[in-house]
Amino acid sequence: MDPDAVAKAFVEHYYSTFDSNRAALSNLYQESSMLTFEGQKIQGSLNIVAKLTSLPFQQCKHSITTVDCQPSGPAGGMLVFVSGNLQLVGEQHALKFSQMFHLMPTPQSSFYVLNDIFRLNYA
Amino acid sequence: MDPDAVAKAFVEHYYSTFDSNRAALSNLYQESSMLTFEGQKIQGSLNIVAKLTSLPFQQCKHSITTVDCQPSGPAGGMLVFVSGNLQLVGEQHALKFSQMFHLMPTPQSSFYVLNDIFRLNYA
Repeated sequence: MDPDAVAKAFVEHYYSTFDSNRAALSNLYQESSMLTFEGQKIQGSLNIVAKLTSLPFQQCKHSITTVDCQPSGPAGGMLVFVSGNLQLVGEQHALKFSQMFHLMPTPQSSFYVLNDIFRLNYA
Repeated sequence: MDPDAVAKAFVEHYYSTFDSNRAALSNLYQESSMLTFEGQKIQGSLNIVAKLTSLPFQQCKHSITTVDCQPSGPAGGMLVFVSGNLQLVGEQHALKFSQMFHLMPTPQSSFYVLNDIFRLNYA
């Protein structure tokens, strides 16, 4: 399995789910998962999705600029580093963002998000 | 040990070394280390430092805007996510960048960089 292809597929799945049905992202996190969103640390799938679904915008569209990935060590994890633009409905200009995911394998040969760090890149 | 304090100390050490004596960064990488620099993957301390010392500028100054960190799993690693500005000597405007490090513990109670992903955030 080509890691770059897996990373790209994960990123497309993640942001299309975010942009269409944020609550469904709960499937990608577990209780040990941690999100740092603009400096705020949140642990556990339920809390993470509560945060993401309560963000102060209803509709948005992520556009991906770059995706980089590396194996994260002997446990079979994968680091995915994303940069892109986030367009909010009703806003004239898109926001630039960077985000990293640490994906860990599941017994079902899939991945879950163990670590997620998101930052807007202010001009 | 406060992980946020460790992350901040690492980041200050890394960029002050980068800005004063890039070749000395070799102490922070090992043979298993991987750098992805603007999409180019480079493995091993020697190759990584060869890349960093051959970048087409002599003097630079990193200014850090944000540092986020999370534990990366049971192996005792730490993920550090940085955003900031990179000022090159002779250039009028600083470049915005994002970078992530996956730090792993050494037997000497220190850390080395297992994963390093760097991207400029073009406007």
